Amino acid sequence: MKEDDVEKKSISRRNFLKTAGGAAAVAGLASSGIPLMVGDAQAACDALPKKWDETYDVVVVGSGFAGLAAAIEAKNAGVSVALLEKMPVHGGNSVINGGDFCAPGTKLQKENGVEDSAELLYKDMMRAGMYLNHPELARTVADNAKDALEWTESYLGCKYAKLNFHGGHSVKRAHGTINQSGSEVVNKELAKAKEIGVQIMLRTKLVKFLSDKNGRIVGMEVLKGYRFPDDKTGKSAFIKARKAVILGSGGFSYDVALRQVHDPRLTDKLGSTNHPGATGEALLAACKSGAADVQMDWIQLGPWTSPEEKGFGYVPLFCEPLVGYGLMVNPKTGKRFFKETGNRKERADAILLLGNPAVIMGDSYAVNKQVVPHALKGGLENGAIKKFDSLDDLARAYDMPVDAFKEQVARWNSFAEKRKDDDLGCMIFKDAKPTVEAPFYAARLWPKVHHTMGGLVINKDAQVMGFDFKPIKGLYAAGEVTGGVHGAVRLGSVAMADCIVFGRIAGKNAAREKAWS
Amino acid sequence: MKEDDVEKKSISRRNFLKTAGGAAAVAGLASSGIPLMVGDAQAACDALPKKWDETYDVVVVGSGFAGLAAAIEAKNAGVSVALLEKMPVHGGNSVINGGDFCAPGTKLQKENGVEDSAELLYKDMMRAGMYLNHPELARTVADNAKDALEWTESYLGCKYAKLNFHGGHSVKRAHGTINQSGSEVVNKELAKAKEIGVQIMLRTKLVKFLSDKNGRIVGMEVLKGYRFPDDKTGKSAFIKARKAVILGSGGFSYDVALRQVHDPRLTDKLGSTNHPGATGEALLAACKSGAADVQMDWIQLGPWTSPEEKGFGYVPLFCEPLVGYGLMVNPKTGKRFFKETGNRKERADAILLLGNPAVIMGDSYAVNKQVVPHALKGGLENGAIKKFDSLDDLARAYDMPVDAFKEQVARWNSFAEKRKDDDLGCMIFKDAKPTVEAPFYAARLWPKVHHTMGGLVINKDAQVMGFDFKPIKGLYAAGEVTGGVHGAVRLGSVAMADCIVFGRIAGKNAAREKAWS
Repeated sequence: MKEDDVEKKSISRRNFLKTAGGAAAVAGLASSGIPLMVGDAQAACDALPKKWDETYDVVVVGSGFAGLAAAIEAKNAGVSVALLEKMPVHGGNSVINGGDFCAPGTKLQKENGVEDSAELLYKDMMRAGMYLNHPELARTVADNAKDALEWTESYLGCKYAKLNFHGGHSVKRAHGTINQSGSEVVNKELAKAKEIGVQIMLRTKLVKFLSDKNGRIVGMEVLKGYRFPDDKTGKSAFIKARKAVILGSGGFSYDVALRQVHDPRLTDKLGSTNHPGATGEALLAACKSGAADVQMDWIQLGPWTSPEEKGFGYVPLFCEPLVGYGLMVNPKTGKRFFKETGNRKERADAILLLGNPAVIMGDSYAVNKQVVPHALKGGLENGAIKKFDSLDDLARAYDMPVDAFKEQVARWNSFAEKRKDDDLGCMIFKDAKPTVEAPFYAARLWPKVHHTMGGLVINKDAQVMGFDFKPIKGLYAAGEVTGGVHGAVRLGSVAMADCIVFGRIAGKNAAREKAWS
Repeated sequence: MKEDDVEKKSISRRNFLKTAGGAAAVAGLASSGIPLMVGDAQAACDALPKKWDETYDVVVVGSGFAGLAAAIEAKNAGVSVALLEKMPVHGGNSVINGGDFCAPGTKLQKENGVEDSAELLYKDMMRAGMYLNHPELARTVADNAKDALEWTESYLGCKYAKLNFHGGHSVKRAHGTINQSGSEVVNKELAKAKEIGVQIMLRTKLVKFLSDKNGRIVGMEVLKGYRFPDDKTGKSAFIKARKAVILGSGGFSYDVALRQVHDPRLTDKLGSTNHPGATGEALLAACKSGAADVQMDWIQLGPWTSPEEKGFGYVPLFCEPLVGYGLMVNPKTGKRFFKETGNRKERADAILLLGNPAVIMGDSYAVNKQVVPHALKGGLENGAIKKFDSLDDLARAYDMPVDAFKEQVARWNSFAEKRKDDDLGCMIFKDAKPTVEAPFYAARLWPKVHHTMGGLVINKDAQVMGFDFKPIKGLYAAGEVTGGVHGAVRLGSVAMADCIVFGRIAGKNAAREKAWS
């Protein structure tokens, strides 16, 4: 034992959490007189607080689709449940989600004559995921998505108005909420959670998990009254979780440092479509307590976002309907550089490789035909979409070489006439026409971070796995904080199904754990 | 404090290492009377042994290119060094490596009129790595490869005979050893290490790192007299590392469980080109002690291996020269299914998707022209390559639909005549001819795991980073156990450069650490 360790007793808790290394996160604090050298043996990891400030059977971290579903199921299983949210409002990304819930074999599909099955959804997920998906997790989502959707209808009272299509799915299976927003589900989850007695704590940030000597998670240190993103705010408190902790803390699209470790291209020059709280500290806290991470480098970029808008914005709704009808060019050269109908990843990679925003453009025929009016109006009003009387004006506005650009448009027009792009192999749709009709519309494109496929390793019971790939007792996770469900690529509309399916599983299983105290 | 913990004192060390969870790896053992609840504070992670069995300044794990380079540099810096190797022989994958050492701007390149630079190598590495490489690590390899090569020549006495080319490099920069094997380098490293007094311990397996209360790595538990792969063999011992531990333990291509977590397709139906000791337990031991992992899901497959040979075998030397001259078909249908000249990843993915081995074939013209005689002879002798008098015989031998196969060969022959593959876009080389000349040769292809790009996060000083992405004091790593150098794809011949460059950096820096005891 080194006696100087004893002197560190007075180091503040906040300070030692900044110390380097996973194991170091528990360093620096020891009460006088504790023997740290124990024969030829090894001792426990975290010493526990003398007094816990609060005690619950189950503690859930995160108030999105997954966390709330978990909290509701745990409470309904008859145990005490607290739900922590670091932000001042609930809902995370779920509340700004587009409100499409993927489920196969539903009533709405039957009404629309759509034949579908869990097996077909599973196959679509695996193909999109490049077969990196953990098969048993993808299957769990596919098999339980219909039941999860019906639970939100019958138990929460959510309403779905129509069936939407997302790229990569074999059929229409995205059930759009009546307000076409995830808020329809997450708000009703919150109302139900409150109604049945889940203790909701906003502005409460997880700082560190606490494990007993067997590695079992027994509680956590939190900051109460936390004011995001200022880590100097909030008051430390210890919360005991008698049965389990459930992480439903979301992805890390807004965590520049973390995402750069896994994909170094994703510097602070890239924004995110996510809510600002989509940072990875809860995920990393789990890793520091022995949880294994997987596929963290599969980070989905949206190639259709504007650097002139915050978050998702209007430009994606302008760009996406225009591909196959208009041109995407590099303003440095005035020339096209990648097929406009390439997939998300291909296009985002190509724009990043340019090193500068691309420009997407269309003429009046294409824009009026393809772009929904409110998106065009919104983008024109905030300046992210621009309108020009001539191609010359457009080129000059983006500092493009005018002649090279006009030559490129003429070339594109020859492709549009014969419906075949000899240069880059873009699909040109049947009703596309040459780009000739003024006024012309354009917007700059620069990728934003949209979804993090990777995260904690879980099994189909939503138990988090350690680095020996056995469950860590007392720790569950669901939703974007987990990895493996989607493999390399998450299909649109599967996020809601994933979160509700695994949130419910986590809640039920956490409530069944044997209490440790 | 829970008194029942005390009762676990008698649990054997071997048993508790099998317990679930990262933190749980330190669980189950505690001497009676240790207070585990320490005020409102948290205590240390690992208690240290009362008595260390051995003490060195620097302890290196692994006896390949990287580990030996590290050991030599540390010893030459004037500190005591032990090097552990779990296998009964030294060298790991390095000793079966093909012996090509990538370096830019060398004397041999100048003699051959090759213009090259570190900058050009860096760009090639980044492009191949799909820009997922940690740029400062790729640059460190590119900038120091020439010096590392010259060190093996001038200090170790290694000899390089000729300049080879590997796909993805802009120029010839692979320096082939005189025996065209990595053994030329690793054997001379071993001889030098012994000569200067490095303590080499074979059959010594790392079981667990030991950290002090600040997360600093202070030593390890090992099994001495270990007989791979039997974890019931060997005797436990504690080795103190006064300055640092250096991991040069290689990749995990042969670790079926670990690779399946990161890429679930890589079941035990896939072999590996690696030596059997290429398992990931040392990497995971580091993660359990707080080290962060990165890009573990980028696992390179060789699409050119035979299920009828062990390891690398002869078939890759048969298959690769034949692409662009012969056909690759699915024996279930008798038809081609993917362009033969696709890259490693594309072809391996396509064969895995078939779910059964493919067949590569060529006629006498192609095989005699393209395949080196010793490979053909070796493959024919061990039965992995087969010779047939007719296409009918060939088809029947692989249970192929004969007519469909012969129709496919006829179709390929029409492409070969016009040098254009209308079906799959395979490149057909200028001197290719229709496949008509008996006898015909064929071999089955089934991917094998070849290289694991991911591993521990390091910085350019070879320090291993924790999950807060700050260095873990006393822990270094180099070579395939690290991640980030190569990003998504490692180029051929860069492994030796990576290992020697970062091995030397790790050794020098480890020797400079302040001793903790």
